[in-house]
Amino acid sequence: MALVVQKYGGSSVANAERILHVARRVAERKRAGDDLVVTVSAMGDTTDELIELARQVTQRPSDREMDLLLSTGEIVTCTLLAMALRDLGVEASSFTGAQAGILTDRTHGRARILGVEPSRIRACVESGQVAIVAGFQGITPETDVTTLGRGGSDTTAVALAAGLQACCCEIYTDVEGVYTCDPRIEPNAQKLKEISYEEMLEMASQGSRVMHPRAVELGSIYNIPILVASSMKVAPGTLIHEVSAMEPSNKVRGISHDNNIAKVTVLGVPDKPGAAATIFERLGAANLTADTIVQNASAHHESTDLTFTVNSDDLQRALEVITPVVEEIHAAGCITDDQLGKVSIVGTGVLNTPGYAPRMFKALADAGINIELITTSEIRITCIIAQNRIADAVRILHRTFELEAPAVDAI
Amino acid sequence: MALVVQKYGGSSVANAERILHVARRVAERKRAGDDLVVTVSAMGDTTDELIELARQVTQRPSDREMDLLLSTGEIVTCTLLAMALRDLGVEASSFTGAQAGILTDRTHGRARILGVEPSRIRACVESGQVAIVAGFQGITPETDVTTLGRGGSDTTAVALAAGLQACCCEIYTDVEGVYTCDPRIEPNAQKLKEISYEEMLEMASQGSRVMHPRAVELGSIYNIPILVASSMKVAPGTLIHEVSAMEPSNKVRGISHDNNIAKVTVLGVPDKPGAAATIFERLGAANLTADTIVQNASAHHESTDLTFTVNSDDLQRALEVITPVVEEIHAAGCITDDQLGKVSIVGTGVLNTPGYAPRMFKALADAGINIELITTSEIRITCIIAQNRIADAVRILHRTFELEAPAVDAI
Repeated sequence: MALVVQKYGGSSVANAERILHVARRVAERKRAGDDLVVTVSAMGDTTDELIELARQVTQRPSDREMDLLLSTGEIVTCTLLAMALRDLGVEASSFTGAQAGILTDRTHGRARILGVEPSRIRACVESGQVAIVAGFQGITPETDVTTLGRGGSDTTAVALAAGLQACCCEIYTDVEGVYTCDPRIEPNAQKLKEISYEEMLEMASQGSRVMHPRAVELGSIYNIPILVASSMKVAPGTLIHEVSAMEPSNKVRGISHDNNIAKVTVLGVPDKPGAAATIFERLGAANLTADTIVQNASAHHESTDLTFTVNSDDLQRALEVITPVVEEIHAAGCITDDQLGKVSIVGTGVLNTPGYAPRMFKALADAGINIELITTSEIRITCIIAQNRIADAVRILHRTFELEAPAVDAI
Repeated sequence: MALVVQKYGGSSVANAERILHVARRVAERKRAGDDLVVTVSAMGDTTDELIELARQVTQRPSDREMDLLLSTGEIVTCTLLAMALRDLGVEASSFTGAQAGILTDRTHGRARILGVEPSRIRACVESGQVAIVAGFQGITPETDVTTLGRGGSDTTAVALAAGLQACCCEIYTDVEGVYTCDPRIEPNAQKLKEISYEEMLEMASQGSRVMHPRAVELGSIYNIPILVASSMKVAPGTLIHEVSAMEPSNKVRGISHDNNIAKVTVLGVPDKPGAAATIFERLGAANLTADTIVQNASAHHESTDLTFTVNSDDLQRALEVITPVVEEIHAAGCITDDQLGKVSIVGTGVLNTPGYAPRMFKALADAGINIELITTSEIRITCIIAQNRIADAVRILHRTFELEAPAVDAI
């Protein structure tokens, strides 16, 4: 009898009918003998509707109030799921993030989980009930309600699995698993049977919107196997776990992409210590994450151009932060391009195995796709290219690295 | 600088516009120098919508889950009001019932407040902020969320006023105060400037739906003056407080009525000790409140008829409870009438002052209204009559006891 933590996302619980569907799945699993803790998101568009309600009252909602407001969405879902389960004869109780002991820092809107004290959840499960926990939310030491930001419910699920020492965490969503690339772009995309945390992290943060990177990271730290599968179909999903038996040839596992990249170039940054630090300190203070950062060593050792990318949605705010800094550090100016995207090849060892990088660059060049910037990690090579060539690039790279073959499933 | 607890009901915060209106009123009052704690209900029909959502999932929602579900309605309102106040430049924070320290028993759906530990609310007010508290909800010793049942937000407000030793509690609602009778029935109904807790209690429990009796009772115990006034208009309301200077002649203060009364008569109850007790024990165990109870002493000391009234909505459930009991105690049977209502005259001393009862009975008789049952308290005389004569009876008694004259306002 294993303890399993499940998570059902917003589209899986969008209305009463879907909640009943989820309840039937949970009931079946419970009757099969597993102990279950289930985390849920808010129903469908509830979060957007609450945000709209706040907008009708003020253009500048306070973060603290916004968090308490939004937290109600997940509470509604979890009470309904608990009711539906009881109706099916399965004892179940719902819990807020606070009741479930999800303890966070005080960063409203994107709080980080500091710890989990799941004594109530454990007692609930040990009494034979299914525990339903509101995702996306936690509580500060002062008992203020916080929300965990994007992908918050995934993070709740994995944190609970870690806190409860569950055997695994199952994320049920509107996709069937992790694919070699976005199946909407390349119909030959293959579903992966398994993937390592590191590879998934690169796939996720590079734009494969299956799971939030924070949740994957947490799974990696606590070594929680995470299954990503469909909440609608009964089909095998993708298991994210510590892959021990590595294939001799470190293949590319998948292609990820992101359509919303903006590039900011600060021109003529004086070649003095601290100039770059000032820029990124300010961005950080405004909660802006600069993704790719490139600085070319200047030829004359006097000034240099510094380029970074942000999500297109953040460009306006980034410029508001950067413009005074440009003056302050005596840079020459600032230019931007918000019509960019990025495409990456992901796989353990791609960077250390000769041949992958040139194959990637050549494939793009052969298709007439200009590479604006290149960045790499241990297991990823990313190219920033024009937004309107992203789909082409995904298809070309999928073919180049022979990901159409189902054989890719065997690590 | 006085500490005041205010409460705004559901229709006063039905949409963003009305919440902004309430925010402006609160802001004005705060700027005038008072310290404020504000309790709010759920927006308009929110509670009904949440109940409907639960019905879509199950016909038998669990009480515990229902409470957690419904509690979200008031949380939404209080976050929005806090945001609106901040937008007006008034610092404000919102709190759930749990955060506000509203401690209750475990009776889900109609929990009773066991105590208030308002340390967070006090700290919030002392820091110069307006504290906004979700009404209608509390928390058990196990940190389960409860709701307080009908009139719950009124009770929250008065309990907070008591816990914070506030100078008074102000209930803002869609009526302008307490009237000598329902102004929709008798246009000459007069608004009372003040009324004693006891009189208000009789007015409220007899069907003047201005404030819930529990809240009035709590105000009486802790001696909290309660002002009932309009949330829309700026007009003097009615002050419910300990009236010390009594008028020499104990006048009738008002006429209250209730349209939904059902009568149950258990026929041929054996005249043995315990028979009546069994009936009312069972009703109590099913959470049914028998209102008026009448038992005629039997002529032969063998059997008697026992009559009681319940709210018409509860008749079906009452019959389910009573039917097996009738058999058990060897009674002859059970008959019902659900087309009844009740009308009362309320005023300190009406029962002890000769003349009021006969004047009431004669006025009804003159109008051809048959009295089914009569009950009395220290300050009230109630007649159960046909439902379709209630409006007539209210108008007749209002005239009979000369309540049209504004002079009634002076106690």
